[in-house]
Amino acid sequence: MRVGIFGLGTVGQGLLQILRERQPAIEAVAVVDRSYARKAELLAGIKASDDKNLILKDKSIDTVVELMGGIDDALYVVRSAIENGKNVVTANKALLAEHGYALFQFASEHGRTIAFEAAIAGAIPIVRNIETIFRHERITRLMGIVNGTTNYILTRMRKDHLSYGEVLEAAQKQGLAEADPTLDVGGYDAQQKLALLTSLITGEWVEAKNIPVRGITEISAQDVVWAERFHNRIRLVAEYNLIQGQHYMHVTPALVGEQNVLYDIEYENNALLFHGEYSAEHLFMGKGAGKFPTAFSVYSDLIQLQLAAASPVPVRKIETYLPIANIADTTSAFYLRLRVKDQPGVLAAIAQILGNNALSIASVHQDHSAVAAGEVDIVIHTHAQKRSGFYKALKEIHALKSIVLHHVYLPVLG
Amino acid sequence: MRVGIFGLGTVGQGLLQILRERQPAIEAVAVVDRSYARKAELLAGIKASDDKNLILKDKSIDTVVELMGGIDDALYVVRSAIENGKNVVTANKALLAEHGYALFQFASEHGRTIAFEAAIAGAIPIVRNIETIFRHERITRLMGIVNGTTNYILTRMRKDHLSYGEVLEAAQKQGLAEADPTLDVGGYDAQQKLALLTSLITGEWVEAKNIPVRGITEISAQDVVWAERFHNRIRLVAEYNLIQGQHYMHVTPALVGEQNVLYDIEYENNALLFHGEYSAEHLFMGKGAGKFPTAFSVYSDLIQLQLAAASPVPVRKIETYLPIANIADTTSAFYLRLRVKDQPGVLAAIAQILGNNALSIASVHQDHSAVAAGEVDIVIHTHAQKRSGFYKALKEIHALKSIVLHHVYLPVLG
Repeated sequence: MRVGIFGLGTVGQGLLQILRERQPAIEAVAVVDRSYARKAELLAGIKASDDKNLILKDKSIDTVVELMGGIDDALYVVRSAIENGKNVVTANKALLAEHGYALFQFASEHGRTIAFEAAIAGAIPIVRNIETIFRHERITRLMGIVNGTTNYILTRMRKDHLSYGEVLEAAQKQGLAEADPTLDVGGYDAQQKLALLTSLITGEWVEAKNIPVRGITEISAQDVVWAERFHNRIRLVAEYNLIQGQHYMHVTPALVGEQNVLYDIEYENNALLFHGEYSAEHLFMGKGAGKFPTAFSVYSDLIQLQLAAASPVPVRKIETYLPIANIADTTSAFYLRLRVKDQPGVLAAIAQILGNNALSIASVHQDHSAVAAGEVDIVIHTHAQKRSGFYKALKEIHALKSIVLHHVYLPVLG
Repeated sequence: MRVGIFGLGTVGQGLLQILRERQPAIEAVAVVDRSYARKAELLAGIKASDDKNLILKDKSIDTVVELMGGIDDALYVVRSAIENGKNVVTANKALLAEHGYALFQFASEHGRTIAFEAAIAGAIPIVRNIETIFRHERITRLMGIVNGTTNYILTRMRKDHLSYGEVLEAAQKQGLAEADPTLDVGGYDAQQKLALLTSLITGEWVEAKNIPVRGITEISAQDVVWAERFHNRIRLVAEYNLIQGQHYMHVTPALVGEQNVLYDIEYENNALLFHGEYSAEHLFMGKGAGKFPTAFSVYSDLIQLQLAAASPVPVRKIETYLPIANIADTTSAFYLRLRVKDQPGVLAAIAQILGNNALSIASVHQDHSAVAAGEVDIVIHTHAQKRSGFYKALKEIHALKSIVLHHVYLPVLG
């Protein structure tokens, strides 16, 4: 197997090292990188250029590894590689979430494979497991922590008693968060990964942008403390449920109780918990990012391509789009924190709205300690009800503008 | 694919159902079972007999599933099936641990495969993952809960404040423990699974009987309570460590802290935590037993055999025996509970022995509450030291027969 690598960043460098140490039968032949000239030391014995044709036009290269990131250039590279008869391994979830439907069709028409283990949950071999061992299983539920940056931020907010902004700044300094963190903290990275996962599970294409998404930017230090008081932790969760033939999914910050295995997934770790109709509960946990863990997933794709070279595993074709059902039709318990004016009758007004919407209250707590004078935090836990009812009540509570200053709500995972 | 099934117990029945519902391309053609006559309802359309030749002599059957359990008959069936050109899927870890070295050689000579996903950790696809995705990874550490019965017993002792004997009896009534529970509670089942796992990891054969093993029979309700006081839980752990080229392994009950993911693996769940040189930490969790979870693992082996029929994945040959290093040469912190006579000088005598053996004490606690008058429990936590030093001290403490009545010790997992 002769490999051409686009993009010699951290992961690309990790891959080069693994290939050199582990696998003489897989040879890195050429590298295309914008700043290849400054990386001569790493490239001993490997052709390098900033010209994409170095790899695309080299007929001796049978496999392309795309680690450039971004969309437009990556799309050109992947399409051209396939047109030129090469298989592709990519870690680019944004590219696949945006253009995957067309790209997988295109690859299938050309009898080529696009492998993407590294695109979802770093080192966790979830793609390969769904594609092989669980290919004939009916996965009815999936719940995952698939974004390391947000899990790192939420973990440090709790452990070090810091605000969202303080941790984000520290994470940016350490290279654990991007200068523009929107993709991660807005939940969009998790949304893309959930789209790919649910496409694999259902065999129909899921459009990432159709998946409801909330990020973690509104989570405050107070919510983290409140969660702890009830033995919960806040996680950004990507969730899929198959209920009576309907496919529900969303990305949302949620309260996770200590009985739930996701409670213990800390820092930049990722985890996927799913339920198979016959095989029951499974948890896969591993590093969600990092030089070698991610490079190892790319490497494992190369190994599998090499093994399959003699007789390719049948490619699962995705030829239809999956209709996504309305998550508001499912049920959940909720945590609701309201910052209100500290005056008589406020709680009564709120309780009445909840009651009118058939929302049953599990507990109510008030706390003056972390707020300004004349204000108070009210924390309400509801029993599980249809989400739509809760959203309606929330809208009505929000309309009490003279007394309700601010609210944060989180579903509570069962 | 035409399949013959030996043994129509719970798992066999689960497999029949899955094959009927999921996979018309894999047909269950014949069943051999001692009480086949009483199971006519389940066998509609399937040939059945108590004569093994029904399957072994049927040339149209290409794959044998062995779910009889036991050693001698199962050995005959597996050997005969291979001689007759059939691939074998088995869930029989005892057979493989005892005769695997010869059987895998025999299969390899005949160009046949013995698949055994269901033999280790029920539904968790650990065999397939080690054999494919992590085939070229260097696994340097493995720590697992691989016996559901003992984990169930330990969980219920803690949650329901019951003694070992009480829970064992309840588990036997529910069919979660055998009438003779020795294989499970003595740790031998875990020992067999660890032997198979480490053989897969190292590519050399590990003799199960050479792996040091301790079971859970000496764990008392007091130890469970003491563990909780220090935010630990007791788990029966199968452990492998690669340290400076030496292979260390053992099965032992151990204290597991709440930071360790094995802490949350409760009841009959199984889990495997391992560390890959490049891919870092991985956790696989799932059901360790049960009708459909185990049957699904057998089924997934059948699917993989079917996929591989066109071009078999190269079989990893095991041609040497792995030397197992002395676990006593590794280090560990320890929990030690001593029941002693409540008289002056006892603690001093014990502390002197520990000191003489260079064992540094992290904490000492005494408790009169759960013991007879004139006795006291002393609980000592040591810092991590070489195990051999601790064992030597233990022997010396044990010799203080006039004052030390009983002891229980557990390593503490980091």
